[in-house]
Amino acid sequence: MKGWRISSFGIDQLEAFEAPEPKAGPGQVVVKIHAASLNFRDLMMVKGFYNPRMELPRIPCSDGAGEIVEVGEGVSDVKIGDRVAGIFMQRWLDGKPSAAKQKAALGGDIDGMLAEYVVLASTGVVRLPEHLSYEEAATLPCAGVTAWNAVVTKGGIEPGETVVIQGTGGVSIFALQFAKLLGARVLGTSSSDEKLERAKSLGLDAGFNYKNQGDWADWVVAETEGQGADLLVEVGGSGTFAQSLKAVRIGGAIAQIGVLSQTQEPLQIAPILRKQVRVQGIFVGSREHFVAMNRAIALSGLKPAIGSVFAFEEAKAAFQKMEGASHFGKIVLLVAN
Amino acid sequence: MKGWRISSFGIDQLEAFEAPEPKAGPGQVVVKIHAASLNFRDLMMVKGFYNPRMELPRIPCSDGAGEIVEVGEGVSDVKIGDRVAGIFMQRWLDGKPSAAKQKAALGGDIDGMLAEYVVLASTGVVRLPEHLSYEEAATLPCAGVTAWNAVVTKGGIEPGETVVIQGTGGVSIFALQFAKLLGARVLGTSSSDEKLERAKSLGLDAGFNYKNQGDWADWVVAETEGQGADLLVEVGGSGTFAQSLKAVRIGGAIAQIGVLSQTQEPLQIAPILRKQVRVQGIFVGSREHFVAMNRAIALSGLKPAIGSVFAFEEAKAAFQKMEGASHFGKIVLLVAN
Amino acid sequence: MKGWRISSFGIDQLEAFEAPEPKAGPGQVVVKIHAASLNFRDLMMVKGFYNPRMELPRIPCSDGAGEIVEVGEGVSDVKIGDRVAGIFMQRWLDGKPSAAKQKAALGGDIDGMLAEYVVLASTGVVRLPEHLSYEEAATLPCAGVTAWNAVVTKGGIEPGETVVIQGTGGVSIFALQFAKLLGARVLGTSSSDEKLERAKSLGLDAGFNYKNQGDWADWVVAETEGQGADLLVEVGGSGTFAQSLKAVRIGGAIAQIGVLSQTQEPLQIAPILRKQVRVQGIFVGSREHFVAMNRAIALSGLKPAIGSVFAFEEAKAAFQKMEGASHFGKIVLLVAN
Amino acid sequence: MKGWRISSFGIDQLEAFEAPEPKAGPGQVVVKIHAASLNFRDLMMVKGFYNPRMELPRIPCSDGAGEIVEVGEGVSDVKIGDRVAGIFMQRWLDGKPSAAKQKAALGGDIDGMLAEYVVLASTGVVRLPEHLSYEEAATLPCAGVTAWNAVVTKGGIEPGETVVIQGTGGVSIFALQFAKLLGARVLGTSSSDEKLERAKSLGLDAGFNYKNQGDWADWVVAETEGQGADLLVEVGGSGTFAQSLKAVRIGGAIAQIGVLSQTQEPLQIAPILRKQVRVQGIFVGSREHFVAMNRAIALSGLKPAIGSVFAFEEAKAAFQKMEGASHFGKIVLLVAN
Repeated sequence: MKGWRISSFGIDQLEAFEAPEPKAGPGQVVVKIHAASLNFRDLMMVKGFYNPRMELPRIPCSDGAGEIVEVGEGVSDVKIGDRVAGIFMQRWLDGKPSAAKQKAALGGDIDGMLAEYVVLASTGVVRLPEHLSYEEAATLPCAGVTAWNAVVTKGGIEPGETVVIQGTGGVSIFALQFAKLLGARVLGTSSSDEKLERAKSLGLDAGFNYKNQGDWADWVVAETEGQGADLLVEVGGSGTFAQSLKAVRIGGAIAQIGVLSQTQEPLQIAPILRKQVRVQGIFVGSREHFVAMNRAIALSGLKPAIGSVFAFEEAKAAFQKMEGASHFGKIVLLVAN
Repeated sequence: MKGWRISSFGIDQLEAFEAPEPKAGPGQVVVKIHAASLNFRDLMMVKGFYNPRMELPRIPCSDGAGEIVEVGEGVSDVKIGDRVAGIFMQRWLDGKPSAAKQKAALGGDIDGMLAEYVVLASTGVVRLPEHLSYEEAATLPCAGVTAWNAVVTKGGIEPGETVVIQGTGGVSIFALQFAKLLGARVLGTSSSDEKLERAKSLGLDAGFNYKNQGDWADWVVAETEGQGADLLVEVGGSGTFAQSLKAVRIGGAIAQIGVLSQTQEPLQIAPILRKQVRVQGIFVGSREHFVAMNRAIALSGLKPAIGSVFAFEEAKAAFQKMEGASHFGKIVLLVAN
Repeated sequence: MKGWRISSFGIDQLEAFEAPEPKAGPGQVVVKIHAASLNFRDLMMVKGFYNPRMELPRIPCSDGAGEIVEVGEGVSDVKIGDRVAGIFMQRWLDGKPSAAKQKAALGGDIDGMLAEYVVLASTGVVRLPEHLSYEEAATLPCAGVTAWNAVVTKGGIEPGETVVIQGTGGVSIFALQFAKLLGARVLGTSSSDEKLERAKSLGLDAGFNYKNQGDWADWVVAETEGQGADLLVEVGGSGTFAQSLKAVRIGGAIAQIGVLSQTQEPLQIAPILRKQVRVQGIFVGSREHFVAMNRAIALSGLKPAIGSVFAFEEAKAAFQKMEGASHFGKIVLLVAN
Repeated sequence: MKGWRISSFGIDQLEAFEAPEPKAGPGQVVVKIHAASLNFRDLMMVKGFYNPRMELPRIPCSDGAGEIVEVGEGVSDVKIGDRVAGIFMQRWLDGKPSAAKQKAALGGDIDGMLAEYVVLASTGVVRLPEHLSYEEAATLPCAGVTAWNAVVTKGGIEPGETVVIQGTGGVSIFALQFAKLLGARVLGTSSSDEKLERAKSLGLDAGFNYKNQGDWADWVVAETEGQGADLLVEVGGSGTFAQSLKAVRIGGAIAQIGVLSQTQEPLQIAPILRKQVRVQGIFVGSREHFVAMNRAIALSGLKPAIGSVFAFEEAKAAFQKMEGASHFGKIVLLVAN
C-alpha cells in the first residue's frame, strides 16, 4: 500500500512510502481509507511545530474515512463493508477527559490516516451518516467534533442565543452549522466579503469584514443591543482573545480552541471576572461526542463545507494550501477509491 | 370596561361584568388586553376542579396580550404603547422556583386576563416578538413557557435527539416547534390522521394514530432502533405514564406536565430506576424563561398554532371547545382592539 | 474452590458447590474473594423474584472484595496482590448509561461473587481504599455506589441543604454518610429508636420513629421551616413515594432507588408538577462513580457500617437475615482469608 | 451619625464625616452598622485604582453587618431588630448575572457600609446565622460569597476532590473552609510557615511555602499523583495564572477571582485547550448565593477567620494593614455597638 509520512520536518520533506497491507489483530479492524482531511494541527505536526520531539517516521493526519475491509478476532460491533471514520483520540471513548484518554491521538502520538490502509481498534472507529460521501465524512473527526463539543456539549447554547465565529476555517464553519442547527443566531468575521457571503449561504446571520470595518468586538456588541454574545468560538490569532472578552456578554462563554497562534498578548484578568465569563478549553472530543454529532448530521442532512480537494499525490500542495490560510471550510485529500 | 368572571363554578355560570377602568399604582402598568388564550387549567378553574376553595368572584385566564396604556410612578422598564403579555406567576421572575415565587398566578391566586384592562406590576409583563399579532402572542404565557421549560431549559435536548409529544394540544404543539427549533427529531401521537398531518406541516417527523394502530410506546421504541426516546413531553391522560416509561430510553427523561388527568394508574417504580429515568415536574416557568423563549421566537419567526378564535362574547363557547378536547394548538379569545 | 449457587429458587435451595480454580484469559484477572456483602437485590435473585427466567445455575451476589492472584495477558492497569472489588455492571465503565452498558451485572446477568475465586476483566475491578478491611470494602459495589450516585453525582446537594433517608439499610446509611461528608443536614426515619440512635452516631441530625410518631412527611416539613427537604433518598416501601412528594420542597429532588416494594399506590402526578420535583431513577453507577467514591472514602476515612457478619457456611442464614429486614447497614459474608 | 468617606483618593485622604441619621423610604430599611470588613477591592477604591472616575464623595466598603432599626412602608420580609448584612450587588437577587444586576454594588456604584446608619432596600439585606457575632458576619458579603460561588456554586466540587488555595487572605480562607465543608482535600500556598500552620488548624490538608520551596505547581502535581488539582481558587498575583494552569488536572477548573494584580504575563492558550480547562470568572454572587451560604454556615457552625480588628477611628490603619497584605483571613472594623 502507499502512504505519506513525516521522516523529517517540513512540508517539502513529506515522504511518499510503500508498505505491505496491514493485518487486523484481535479486537482490531483494517480500514481502507478513501479520503483524508487536513487540520491546522496536521500542518504544525508536519512542520515540527506541534511536537518537535515527535518520534519519526510518523504518518500524519487525524482525519480519514473509508470502509472496513477486515475485522480481527472478537470484533462484533462493526463488520466488513461498514463505512467508518477514525476517532481523534483512540482511547477517549466516553465520559470526562483524562491524561490516559488523551493519549493515542491519530497522526500525533500514533500513526495517522494518510495511507491506503489503517489498523485501528474496533472501538476506535464510528459509522458514517449515510448521506455523506467519504470526502465529506473525512472532515468530521477533528474539526467537526471540536465544533460540536464547543457549541453543543460544552456550549450549552439555547435557541435564540448568539454565537460568534472567527474566520471561515473548518472549525468555524462547523460551529456555524451546528449553532444554526440548534436555533442560535450566528455572527461571523472574515477578511473577505466573498467568504462572508458564502458563510451566509450556510446560515450566517450577519458578517463583519474586519479588514475594512475595524473593531469586530464593537460590532458584536452593537449587534446584540449592547449585551454582547453568549458564546465566542475562539479559534485564536493575535489579539482575538482580548476582542472576544470585549464581545462576550456578562455571564457568557468563550470556547477556547485556538491553536492558530501562540499569542504574546497579555492575559486579561479583569474582564474575565468582572463579566463572570467562562473560558472553556476544547480539545476535540470523545467517541460519544462523535456518535452524537453524526446522529444530528444524519437527521438534519447537514453537509460539511469542503473548500478544496486534492489528489493523493498532491499531498504537499494540500498542506501548502492549509499554510496559506485562505481556504473556506475543509481541505480534503483523496486517498483510494 | 367589560370582562368575564367566575362567580360560581361551571362554564354556564361564567358571568359577564362591567367595571370602571383600573388605575396604575406605583410600579404598576395598565394593559389594554387585545386577546386571551385558554389552557386546560383555565377550564379546570372555571369548573371548580382546580381549586374548589378559590375565592370568588375571580377573573379567569392566565394568558393575555395587549398594549400598555398607563404606567405608574417609578416605572422605567416599559412605556406606554409597548406590546406585552403577562407572566404566569407574577412573582417568579428569575432563578429557581420557591413557594413564595409560585404565589400570585394569574387567573388563579389573583385575577386573570379575561377583561379589557388589567393592572400588573411592571415586572409582571414581557415585551412581545414583533412579528406576532396579539392573538398569536396571547398563546405564549402558559402553554408556550411550559413547553419551553420542558424541552429547552430542563429538557437539555441536543440536536439529533428524539422528543415525543402526545396529542396536539397547545403545550404539545409548542413542544414540537421548540424541539424542531433545536434540531431534535419529533415523534407524535394522536387519534386523528388529519391532526398528525397538520403537525407534520409544523415539523413532526413521524406520527402514530393510537386509535388505529395500537400501542404507541412500541412504535416509539421501533422508531428509535430499539433505544427509546430521549425526552417524553408527558401531558397526561389515563395510562400514558406507563407508556412513557416504556418509550423512554435508558438515561432518558420525562417532562411531567399532565394536569389532564388524575390517573389511578399504579406508580411504576421499577422502570424509573432500572432505566435511570429522570422525571421532571414542569409548572410553567419564570419571567426569565419567557424572555428567552421570546428571543428564540423572534429570531426564528416561529408562529404559534391557533386552532380556533372566538369573539369576546363567545367566551362560554370557547371553554366548551376546550372541554371537547378536539382542538389543535391554541384556542384564542378576542378581547378588544 | 468452593462457592454457593442458585440451582433452583429459594433461600433453602441455595447450593454449595466445588469447582476447579478459574484461569485468567487475555485482559482478565483472577480475584481471590475474601468477603462478600448482601443486597436486597441478591435476596430477590435467590428467591427468583428479580428475574424468574434467569438462567441457572447462577452464582449470586454483586458485591465482593479480595486480592488479585493472577493477571492475564495484556493486563497492565492492575497487578497481583492488588486489593480490589468488582464493579456492579462490568461494562458500565464511564459516561452515561445505555442498554449495552447495563448488561453484564454481577450476580444477575452473569455469575457473581459468592465463590472463592472469580474471573473478571481487568477493567471490571477497582482498587480499595487502604484503610478498609475486605469485609468493609465488600459493602461498596452496590449499596455504596448507589448512594454515591444518588446523593453526590445526581443529587447535586450543597452544604447546608437537607437530605432525608428512610430506614437504616445499606443504601440509606451510605447516603447518610455521604450527605454528611458534603456538609448536608440529614433527617432519617426508622421504626426503632435504637437504630435512630445508632444513625445519630454516624451523623444523623434528627430522627423520626414512624412507628410511634405518625406521619414522617409532616415532620420533615416542620423540621425544614415549612419548606420541605432538598433531596429524598427514596428506597421504597408501601406508601413512601406519596410521603416523599409531601416532604420534598418546591424544586427539590427524589432519588428513586426503591426496589424494596412493587407498590400499588397510585401515581401522584399533581405534586410532581406543582412542586416542580425531579424524580431521578438510580441504578447503582459506573466504574467512574466507584473510583470517585473510593477517593472520597479514602480522604475522609469513612467506614462502612456493618450490621452483621456471617461465615461462608452460613450463607443461608445471611440471606434470612436480609429477608428479616431488621439489619442496620450491611450484612457481610466472609469467604476466604 | 458618623462615617468615613472618600473625598479624594488615598488612604490618608479618607475623611471622617458627620451626617443626620437616614430615614427608610417605601420598601427600605435602616440598618445600624455594628461592624464592617475590608476587601482588597475597598483598598483599590480608596486609592482610586478601581475606578478613577468614581463620583466623590463616596462611603467605602461593601461589607457591613448590623441590626434593622427602622422599616419603611410595605416592608414585610424583615423587621426591626433583625440582624442582617447587606448584599454586595444590591440588584443581583437571583438567577444569572446581567449588566443590570451588576449595577449598584455597595461601596462602589453607590455608598457603602462604613457609617453608623445605612439605608438599603429590604431585599438588599440577608439575615445572619445566629452563632455569628456582628464582627464575624461582617466578613461575609464579599469574601464569603465570592468563595462560596467559586467553590460550591460554580466549583462543582465533589467530596474527595482536590482544591488549591493561594495565600491566606479572606477569600482563600473562606474557600478553604467551604471546600472542607463539602469533603474536599485542600492544598495551600503561603510565604509563611506560621500562616500555613494556622490554615492547617482550619482544615488545610497540606501546605507549601513558596518562599523556601520553589515551584508550587510542581508540588501540587506531586501531591495529586501526577494528575493535578480539580479546582484552583486563583486570587491572582504575578505569574500565578501560568502556575495554576500547570497545577490543574486535565478537565479541571480555575476560579478566576484575582483582582490582586493586573499581571502582564502572556496569555497561555495552549494549556487551556490541551488540558480542556474551564476558567470561570467569579465576581462575588447573588443574594440567593448569600442565603445558601448562610444556611451552610449555620448548620456547620463555621466561624469566619478574623485576622485583625480595628476601632472605627482607626479606619486608616485598617486600610494600611490591608495594603501590607500580611493579614490572615479578614480585617474587621468596629462601627457601633
